Amino acid sequence: MRRIVVVLVVGVALAGVIASMAPVSGQADGEAAPIFGVTIPPGYRDWRLISVAHEKGNLNDLRAILGNDVAIKASREGTLPYPDGTIIARLAWSYDPLEESEKAFGRLQSFVAGPPKNGVQFMVKDARKYTATGGWGFAQFNDGKPADEAVHNTCFACHETVKARDFVFNRYAP
Amino acid sequence: MRRIVVVLVVGVALAGVIASMAPVSGQADGEAAPIFGVTIPPGYRDWRLISVAHEKGNLNDLRAILGNDVAIKASREGTLPYPDGTIIARLAWSYDPLEESEKAFGRLQSFVAGPPKNGVQFMVKDARKYTATGGWGFAQFNDGKPADEAVHNTCFACHETVKARDFVFNRYAP
Repeated sequence: MRRIVVVLVVGVALAGVIASMAPVSGQADGEAAPIFGVTIPPGYRDWRLISVAHEKGNLNDLRAILGNDVAIKASREGTLPYPDGTIIARLAWSYDPLEESEKAFGRLQSFVAGPPKNGVQFMVKDARKYTATGGWGFAQFNDGKPADEAVHNTCFACHETVKARDFVFNRYAP
Repeated sequence: MRRIVVVLVVGVALAGVIASMAPVSGQADGEAAPIFGVTIPPGYRDWRLISVAHEKGNLNDLRAILGNDVAIKASREGTLPYPDGTIIARLAWSYDPLEESEKAFGRLQSFVAGPPKNGVQFMVKDARKYTATGGWGFAQFNDGKPADEAVHNTCFACHETVKARDFVFNRYAP
């Protein structure tokens, strides 16, 4: 009986490890982005929400920031710098009027996520690998394909604006 | 050895069941909302993202729609009506300018989630329990406390606008 209990505990622990590894797996999934060599993290669309935003101007999108387990923990606890293993995903969609908004509210006031827009971006923390860019690797994928090198050269310059927050614009939305 | 393998498999399966139960637990957490008796679902902030939105007008917020496992599956597959056990959560935050936006983009164009605003709302599907309201129970909590009955009387009337989509405004954002 004791052996069964021990093995059960090992089994449960093992399953827990497998479950917790799944969303932070660094397994390659498709082509790597230039400069930083980041690939699309498997299962990122299942990650938990850090925050949401609306970009006006040329971007004109609604966006969500998701994080892997390391990112969520650091983000909730306000840990700076973010630990190695952090991956932050930025998804974005067209900023579309909700068709039924006027009927529901008496005027058009609701804007919702339409089709994907402006690609999907990732920030991957590896302090030793990415020393020249604050410990972060950056990547953008458009329709699953890496954007070109010119795009990737713009990432760090913009994120330097928030160097005091370890180069991360978003804050956790409780 | 064979016994160990069997027990291991049982252990792993058991851990999987426990893990998958956690986010859809209906365990009561705090005071129930009027009319529908809905309580705050434990762990809802860890649920996966369905979509995001921006409400202008008096609401003036940025919002995220999260779903429990039943909701995510139905939402991704376009299942209508949503199955019993579906819970959809609507979180909202103040629509705030991002302080560093002008520095990063040359003009203020980024708006992000500030402090929580307009409460947290839930839709709970139980076709037999909520026959009078399309099979949905509605709830709003402000700072963790249920809103009053008058607020809850407005939910279904507004959601009837989207009766053709089983009373759900949001669509899954891929």
